[in-house]
Amino acid sequence: MTHLPDRLIAGYRNFMAGRYSSESDRYRALAKDGQSPKTMVIACCDSRAAPETIFDCGPGELFVVRNVANLVPPYAPDGQHHGTSAALEFAVQSLKVKHIVVMGHGRCGGIGAALNRSAEPLSPGDFIGKWMGLVKPAAEALAENEMMTKAERQTALERISIRYQVENLRSFPCVKILEDKGRLTLHGAWFDISSGELWVMDPKTGDFERPDFE
Amino acid sequence: MTHLPDRLIAGYRNFMAGRYSSESDRYRALAKDGQSPKTMVIACCDSRAAPETIFDCGPGELFVVRNVANLVPPYAPDGQHHGTSAALEFAVQSLKVKHIVVMGHGRCGGIGAALNRSAEPLSPGDFIGKWMGLVKPAAEALAENEMMTKAERQTALERISIRYQVENLRSFPCVKILEDKGRLTLHGAWFDISSGELWVMDPKTGDFERPDFE
Amino acid sequence: MTHLPDRLIAGYRNFMAGRYSSESDRYRALAKDGQSPKTMVIACCDSRAAPETIFDCGPGELFVVRNVANLVPPYAPDGQHHGTSAALEFAVQSLKVKHIVVMGHGRCGGIGAALNRSAEPLSPGDFIGKWMGLVKPAAEALAENEMMTKAERQTALERISIRYQVENLRSFPCVKILEDKGRLTLHGAWFDISSGELWVMDPKTGDFERPDFE
Amino acid sequence: MTHLPDRLIAGYRNFMAGRYSSESDRYRALAKDGQSPKTMVIACCDSRAAPETIFDCGPGELFVVRNVANLVPPYAPDGQHHGTSAALEFAVQSLKVKHIVVMGHGRCGGIGAALNRSAEPLSPGDFIGKWMGLVKPAAEALAENEMMTKAERQTALERISIRYQVENLRSFPCVKILEDKGRLTLHGAWFDISSGELWVMDPKTGDFERPDFE
Repeated sequence: MTHLPDRLIAGYRNFMAGRYSSESDRYRALAKDGQSPKTMVIACCDSRAAPETIFDCGPGELFVVRNVANLVPPYAPDGQHHGTSAALEFAVQSLKVKHIVVMGHGRCGGIGAALNRSAEPLSPGDFIGKWMGLVKPAAEALAENEMMTKAERQTALERISIRYQVENLRSFPCVKILEDKGRLTLHGAWFDISSGELWVMDPKTGDFERPDFE
Repeated sequence: MTHLPDRLIAGYRNFMAGRYSSESDRYRALAKDGQSPKTMVIACCDSRAAPETIFDCGPGELFVVRNVANLVPPYAPDGQHHGTSAALEFAVQSLKVKHIVVMGHGRCGGIGAALNRSAEPLSPGDFIGKWMGLVKPAAEALAENEMMTKAERQTALERISIRYQVENLRSFPCVKILEDKGRLTLHGAWFDISSGELWVMDPKTGDFERPDFE
Repeated sequence: MTHLPDRLIAGYRNFMAGRYSSESDRYRALAKDGQSPKTMVIACCDSRAAPETIFDCGPGELFVVRNVANLVPPYAPDGQHHGTSAALEFAVQSLKVKHIVVMGHGRCGGIGAALNRSAEPLSPGDFIGKWMGLVKPAAEALAENEMMTKAERQTALERISIRYQVENLRSFPCVKILEDKGRLTLHGAWFDISSGELWVMDPKTGDFERPDFE
Repeated sequence: MTHLPDRLIAGYRNFMAGRYSSESDRYRALAKDGQSPKTMVIACCDSRAAPETIFDCGPGELFVVRNVANLVPPYAPDGQHHGTSAALEFAVQSLKVKHIVVMGHGRCGGIGAALNRSAEPLSPGDFIGKWMGLVKPAAEALAENEMMTKAERQTALERISIRYQVENLRSFPCVKILEDKGRLTLHGAWFDISSGELWVMDPKTGDFERPDFE
């Protein structure tokens, strides 16, 4: 018996009979030639917000980092193991992606945890608390605003955070230089799980707006 | 004009007309009730190996971390910002997932970099070098093995690394305790981009085998 | 020549040939029997947000107050000329409406003025400044939040204000008593001029959500 | 379930499928460019006399104040919250409207209340009594005229009041100055709910006459 949850085995069989079967040439070419995605997406681990699903993208299209709350720790060349920074460096300098999209989403558990830090830490290590500490100042400032509802504070922080992460991307010299040269474009987006709507950040104002299909 | 690559806008329209349209009830319920995925997947950023695609999973099914080479830094409660550890803690202690799958894949760029450390670092920060340092001992040991081809060394390290990462998961007390109680199961898998084959790790032997469908 | 702008004369001719012509019986009955609207709407003067248009309502359906930014000054039985309070009293005690809807909207000029009080007053009387002083505390608290964009602060204040106005309604004894008896229901709504969307306030959480048509 | 009366939800669906659907470009442009209505209408809250309906006007055309009996409290820069004065100031000085129309109507409940002040006040605050006090001298003079029928007194006061309100508009310096310069025109109109007729005030004589369409 295969040591994998049944659901995954069943899903994998669908994949083989479906997508792989119809796209085997593409998979073979991607294996032979290597990947050359044009876009990096920094997304959340949340099970409801997979970038490939939302953007209906196939193999080879998106280079995807997923961490809790789609954060980008600011540039810190200190010898630690920085997973997101490593992925960023690899995407920009090796793969030479043209676009980086920071994609957040509504009802994000990490953002919720940041807004509610009176709760007990989940573990002595309190990894989630420390990780979400990356948005601590904004979370604390918002948490005091009792005129906004809990849900409004959550959405506000989700969007403030996306703007912060896009700004953090620019703290990496390789990103800043390529953006200044017009070879790399940074984007922000926010996905509404309930309605399926994608709100896109206006790079000038920072506002999130729904794309106009007309 | 929407500030997002055209391909993503087009893909998003497909999503809305297709998957979202046919599953809007599910999305709404997932938004209202919150996510409760049974499985966490730790996968690579690689554009050719999206877990949702390979396991044909829909919204709400997989909680997914993606970093370069699907690594799990060992437990280190040191106050740093550990993105993967934070996601792990959140999945296990808040979401109470039942399964964690470490999924690697063939032709992994991160593994290739680890095997080829004579190359110049990509940047002064050398984030990718430091990140892949997590598999450094195995990489160095293999790199000296000139009897294996380059491709064989690559595949070997990809699989060795998956076993290491599963072992690193056990360095987290919350994982170890729940696994010992039978409430959490750890898995390893390796995806062959070219053939579309999924190889699953045998938990007893550590071997990777193809699932037997019949 | 009629002393009325040409556009209004032309529009009135359309009304007579159209709506009045097809609904003359209804108009006659409404004149004879008096009005008995079930709903009072407190809306903004803004030319883009007429309640009868947005709710597609005909003669006799909505009792409508319109002032800048759809405000409800709190109960103040002080002998002054309180236009909104007079309308409220008339609607609740004479007409016995069953519902009161406070309807705000996006890009509200009054709310914008409240958020930007460094500007010179429009006149020595500064009526707009004093009127919008009714949301001054919320406006000042939000104006300091530089993490939110200008547009986000505007939307936030528009919604905070609607919640305040609904609360102010309850400062009127006649409203409070009837609401407690279940004979009167208070509602909040926010109209997005650009998309035409109506967001409805959840009375429990205060959140604004789009109605679900399914 | 949406917290809004069913009738409004149904009406809103009609709006979206009808007017918004056919005029979405206009709504989007109005949202983007802001409103620039040429006309301000000061109308009554009455459910049977919506200006947009009577003048068949679309989004962006009319800036509308609605209070009980379409009154204009005279200029009083005293620091109180004057809703109608604030709207007037905003329309004239910010929006720079070219026309102001005071529109009254037959069978007006507010005017009726002013004529019948022997009745008990509706509430201890008696907001409606104090608000209609703005036409008190005229009301008292008419109430004593027992040669006119009740309905005649009512119509008479409705029209007297419109002339008073137009005069009150001129007590605002900004209105007086612009009218003298020919940049702003003041109008009076009276709507007959039963017949649908609109009677327009002759600015020279003060008489109300039906527009001649041919």
